[in-house]
Amino acid sequence: MSHNSFGHLFRVTTWGESHGPALGCVVDGCPPGLTLTASDIQHWLDRRKPGGNRFVTQRREADEVKILSGVFEDARTGGPVTTGTPISLLIENTDQRSKDYAAISTQFRPGHADHTYFAKYGVRDYRGGGRASARETAARVAAGAVARKVLGGVTIRAALVQVGPHAIDRRRWDWRQTEQNPFWCPDAETVPVWEQFLDQVRKAGSSTGAIIEVTAEGVPPGWGAPIYGKLDGELAGALMSINAVKGVEIGAGFAAAAFSGEDNADAMTLEDGAVRFASNHAGGVAGGISTGQPLVARIALKPTSSILTPQMALNEAGEAVEVRTTGRHDPCVGLRAAPVAEAMMACVLADAFLRHRGQTGGGAFRPGGEGRG
Amino acid sequence: MSHNSFGHLFRVTTWGESHGPALGCVVDGCPPGLTLTASDIQHWLDRRKPGGNRFVTQRREADEVKILSGVFEDARTGGPVTTGTPISLLIENTDQRSKDYAAISTQFRPGHADHTYFAKYGVRDYRGGGRASARETAARVAAGAVARKVLGGVTIRAALVQVGPHAIDRRRWDWRQTEQNPFWCPDAETVPVWEQFLDQVRKAGSSTGAIIEVTAEGVPPGWGAPIYGKLDGELAGALMSINAVKGVEIGAGFAAAAFSGEDNADAMTLEDGAVRFASNHAGGVAGGISTGQPLVARIALKPTSSILTPQMALNEAGEAVEVRTTGRHDPCVGLRAAPVAEAMMACVLADAFLRHRGQTGGGAFRPGGEGRG
Amino acid sequence: MSHNSFGHLFRVTTWGESHGPALGCVVDGCPPGLTLTASDIQHWLDRRKPGGNRFVTQRREADEVKILSGVFEDARTGGPVTTGTPISLLIENTDQRSKDYAAISTQFRPGHADHTYFAKYGVRDYRGGGRASARETAARVAAGAVARKVLGGVTIRAALVQVGPHAIDRRRWDWRQTEQNPFWCPDAETVPVWEQFLDQVRKAGSSTGAIIEVTAEGVPPGWGAPIYGKLDGELAGALMSINAVKGVEIGAGFAAAAFSGEDNADAMTLEDGAVRFASNHAGGVAGGISTGQPLVARIALKPTSSILTPQMALNEAGEAVEVRTTGRHDPCVGLRAAPVAEAMMACVLADAFLRHRGQTGGGAFRPGGEGRG
Amino acid sequence: MSHNSFGHLFRVTTWGESHGPALGCVVDGCPPGLTLTASDIQHWLDRRKPGGNRFVTQRREADEVKILSGVFEDARTGGPVTTGTPISLLIENTDQRSKDYAAISTQFRPGHADHTYFAKYGVRDYRGGGRASARETAARVAAGAVARKVLGGVTIRAALVQVGPHAIDRRRWDWRQTEQNPFWCPDAETVPVWEQFLDQVRKAGSSTGAIIEVTAEGVPPGWGAPIYGKLDGELAGALMSINAVKGVEIGAGFAAAAFSGEDNADAMTLEDGAVRFASNHAGGVAGGISTGQPLVARIALKPTSSILTPQMALNEAGEAVEVRTTGRHDPCVGLRAAPVAEAMMACVLADAFLRHRGQTGGGAFRPGGEGRG
Repeated sequence: MSHNSFGHLFRVTTWGESHGPALGCVVDGCPPGLTLTASDIQHWLDRRKPGGNRFVTQRREADEVKILSGVFEDARTGGPVTTGTPISLLIENTDQRSKDYAAISTQFRPGHADHTYFAKYGVRDYRGGGRASARETAARVAAGAVARKVLGGVTIRAALVQVGPHAIDRRRWDWRQTEQNPFWCPDAETVPVWEQFLDQVRKAGSSTGAIIEVTAEGVPPGWGAPIYGKLDGELAGALMSINAVKGVEIGAGFAAAAFSGEDNADAMTLEDGAVRFASNHAGGVAGGISTGQPLVARIALKPTSSILTPQMALNEAGEAVEVRTTGRHDPCVGLRAAPVAEAMMACVLADAFLRHRGQTGGGAFRPGGEGRG
Repeated sequence: MSHNSFGHLFRVTTWGESHGPALGCVVDGCPPGLTLTASDIQHWLDRRKPGGNRFVTQRREADEVKILSGVFEDARTGGPVTTGTPISLLIENTDQRSKDYAAISTQFRPGHADHTYFAKYGVRDYRGGGRASARETAARVAAGAVARKVLGGVTIRAALVQVGPHAIDRRRWDWRQTEQNPFWCPDAETVPVWEQFLDQVRKAGSSTGAIIEVTAEGVPPGWGAPIYGKLDGELAGALMSINAVKGVEIGAGFAAAAFSGEDNADAMTLEDGAVRFASNHAGGVAGGISTGQPLVARIALKPTSSILTPQMALNEAGEAVEVRTTGRHDPCVGLRAAPVAEAMMACVLADAFLRHRGQTGGGAFRPGGEGRG
Repeated sequence: MSHNSFGHLFRVTTWGESHGPALGCVVDGCPPGLTLTASDIQHWLDRRKPGGNRFVTQRREADEVKILSGVFEDARTGGPVTTGTPISLLIENTDQRSKDYAAISTQFRPGHADHTYFAKYGVRDYRGGGRASARETAARVAAGAVARKVLGGVTIRAALVQVGPHAIDRRRWDWRQTEQNPFWCPDAETVPVWEQFLDQVRKAGSSTGAIIEVTAEGVPPGWGAPIYGKLDGELAGALMSINAVKGVEIGAGFAAAAFSGEDNADAMTLEDGAVRFASNHAGGVAGGISTGQPLVARIALKPTSSILTPQMALNEAGEAVEVRTTGRHDPCVGLRAAPVAEAMMACVLADAFLRHRGQTGGGAFRPGGEGRG
Repeated sequence: MSHNSFGHLFRVTTWGESHGPALGCVVDGCPPGLTLTASDIQHWLDRRKPGGNRFVTQRREADEVKILSGVFEDARTGGPVTTGTPISLLIENTDQRSKDYAAISTQFRPGHADHTYFAKYGVRDYRGGGRASARETAARVAAGAVARKVLGGVTIRAALVQVGPHAIDRRRWDWRQTEQNPFWCPDAETVPVWEQFLDQVRKAGSSTGAIIEVTAEGVPPGWGAPIYGKLDGELAGALMSINAVKGVEIGAGFAAAAFSGEDNADAMTLEDGAVRFASNHAGGVAGGISTGQPLVARIALKPTSSILTPQMALNEAGEAVEVRTTGRHDPCVGLRAAPVAEAMMACVLADAFLRHRGQTGGGAFRPGGEGRG
């Protein structure tokens, strides 16, 4: 339940501020015997690393992860494997320009957590948002990389489906495209539209929101639980905890409100002894338990609160002040959130798998897609 | 973490199946010294009780709650107060027509948890959906009634804002109207529209979805926590755990994706020494911590999966079968979910208040709006 | 973490006061497919039932348990099996002589929780100790009966090894004897000694303490976890939570403080491919993980605080008063605690097994000693 | 619940192996506004640091702690205070002679966790016991130093009361003595006895056990909770989780088994409006809740398992082998455990205080003995 821990059997605790010496996480409860190296984790961290293009903050962090515990040579292969003990991951903060923030050290910026952190704690680390900074999501991505090892055969992918008012055409969805452009966009024809739009936003010193879709394929039926352990409930909580997320939907989501029961039903048939569904309005979950269909979730991200346009705000003295952000910020945080959404999906599923295996034996699914764990 | 428990310091555990002898909950961690009688709880249960009108299932349950523990006479007033020990609440199931379900005892109905429960556990109580039945939400409402006692000055209300494709006109919003019609509709002019629409749906043996908005006024700044203890994250998980919910949004929600930073900002000013916001796109939460503005959340509910139209499905033998539902069902589960959404909001806030008070001392807010707790 | 819940995957929540309408528990996370009837549970409850002999309180409770949820007919056998959903167990309080306690309604009895409950909560149910009554342990025994189903091949037994100053001779240990006398005594020759001693204690209106040894045979190597999930740590916490327990030891326990490393070592050899130990000073646990040897724990219980001899105490007004207990009480609570110690051992092990299976797959051990779970 | 986390509101997660690059902990849920510097923590770490005298291992570790997060300058004083966000503490391992352990890399040493870790995980870090090493307790002591800040006015002290068969004379108890000798001995006349005894043990390459008493003064009445949240239950679990501990007792402990109710009663009187007790057999806890008297617990530690005398053991191939330890080890782990016992007492109490304050408001006690928190 602690505020900075997540999960039950596969449990992640993150720590660190934007401008402290380092940030990181501890992953507890990971199954033993899974091959794990720093480069396995680095691969996923690099995908969220800033500085990739002109549309994301120019702050340049190496984001180099160190494994401090929980991995040791396998007695048989000699290679590094998880030992079942806590995996401590550390990422140093190498590019901290705290002076950027001196000006707002006593100001509460609209849309930021400045005011609420101060209201709660009576003290706050104002540098780059402190604990509320998107920097923290690096630790989530690192933990997600470990979760992916647990999940073996499960494929977890995310894509942007809307930037500002501009949505993709789902008929042109091609996952390979998400690797071809800086927007995680699965629709090639939408890329130039977003590019032009984001240039306008950036030049205006403004910002914009976005919608991300994250999916998991290969999840067997039976993960999750009734009532408060529902897979969609845990997924909603995990995704809503990502910075700037204001909405979460599963499968048909909000559109289902306008559906009739006939339209919404996912008819079941049998093919080669396996259950097949005519549609996936449920988004892969029924009664809180996975159906065997792909898990499908979407999250809405608000526009970055940091804009160059001066805004009315307050300072700690309770005086009205005009705030003008001068730090480095993304015009669209959505451009950086896809790997974070994947990581949270991975952590939720790894935990759901271990809990399911604990209560029921877990059926045929094996950690790492095979082996000992 | 247990699958049927919810909350951390204010912790609710529910139990019971649709057609078992009874259902109920245990509320642990409630502050002591709060006046609590069965009728305090019954008041809220009656608001969700079926049989209220022709648009909800005709199953008639007394839904009479008994308090089995955790309440005793106050040494000073002699009246019943919470003692700080677990409050056990029990509701007997009095109207069980199990024969209705014999026909589908081996069938997996589309959109129901029949298939997933069986896939997970290898056994299921098929009567009325067993544990997956909306009957379980009675226990949530009972727990929510206790949470309201803890929250004292906080006002929690819910309203339907859309039924099928028909949304209300928010400019006509009047909370008093929600008590004047069977639809929890805050817009008097929309009532006849929904009435006509739902008559069609019911006569067609079909069903429809809905959107509910739930708000909490009087929450002080500072409740919630960073990262995984975020107030909006916990709220999203809690609301998504309600039967048939497929989407959750906070404040501007999905609409924020299309906003610019300028449009989305909630400018802050000072009035009589208190922080005032020009708007509430944040929905009362920033950085996972309450701002002092009203908490605003919306949930999308899918149409009832039980429809009279025959549907293709499977049975436990893996054969394709045609399923035709004959039991009693609501054409729109949304009509019954408003009190449940209120209850989950109340439980989340009661827990957030106690956790906040534990870590920080909690400031001026008092349980029950006053007194000892 | 909630105060009245215990365990992680196999999670027990108890509720109820000594003189309320009922008490009970909710067992969440139980594996599905285990045969379970009320009589399975009643068997263990009857073993702790008061009124068995002249050495325990004459309060006569039927202690009849009802299963309210979580069990349904197995699709294949038709017999009642656990469904994987919460198992709610209820025991009505049928013999409540509250008037016995009116006299002490405002008094704090020495050695009782009267003063501390009032100091913590500002209100207390003074009837029979309220929540602090040994009545609550009936719910633990009921939960333990479910845990035994999970543990299948594991044999859990407890015996009294000391009453007051009179210890047994361990060389005469015979488990069958524990069923032959009202003292759970494994040493036939010690029975008359305790009988005479307890008669004196009872006639003097005094009370005495005791030591109980509880063991578990058949636990495979590997259950438990490092550091804070240690099997002996969880067992110590569980046993210390039993009313009147003031000490817990594992294996050699306090005696180990005087041992040399040579004396304390449990030398390992191999017999027929299985690890064998020359001794069991470790009590079946090393590094917090089970060794495959029998788990051995001992608990020390203080004498019943309720004695007929008048004692100096305080009342709620803060005045010194002379307290004279008139209610029904046992001269030695130890005579009733053996089944409770067994139940806590069972609950700890069921939880440890499910957590171990969750993280590692769990090896060959199966719930119920076989089958589906 | 995760295996390497401890506490509920004040939550400690430790990580690290004996011979990895570092070890450390994350302290989550700490109240904000408490002054905290690395030297505050270093003070307590230095007290458990090895190399202090000839009776403890000659392994020399700087054990220098770094604060990586959760502390920032106070807006008013400018000094470093806790911010309410996770406090990450790191201690590098600077003196690792892994070659010492190559010989036993495939051997299971009697009394060690070698065999059980391998049985559970199928892989183990054999260097210096890996995760099972007493090195891990450095992280506990660091966390305990933070807990002491929360506890302000509470005084937590530990002393050795028995080494091998040699117990102190409690009538000569003088806390100041514990700082005057390397044995944490409160009885000056016992020091030479232990010195001579430990010299024999060390020269013989043997080892011995010990008993430690840990107390907390200044705990107000009301901390802890009924049933499974009992203060003594949580304390027992926490103390039993310390390496080599085989027994825990509270107050009179095992001696209470031989007491009569008259002897065991702690008579209450009133002095200057405050409750006074004639004795403290309860050890400061009644019904799981603090009485206001000093908390008193004792733990029994087994002799170090590592002895120079060759022992029969097994290797991973299942062959019987003779094990001869050559690494650096203490003849009596008890000499190093006093600061660890204090740390666990501090963590349990900090958590109990925050939970008590969460549910009830917490009365007059303030974190840090004053102020904001």
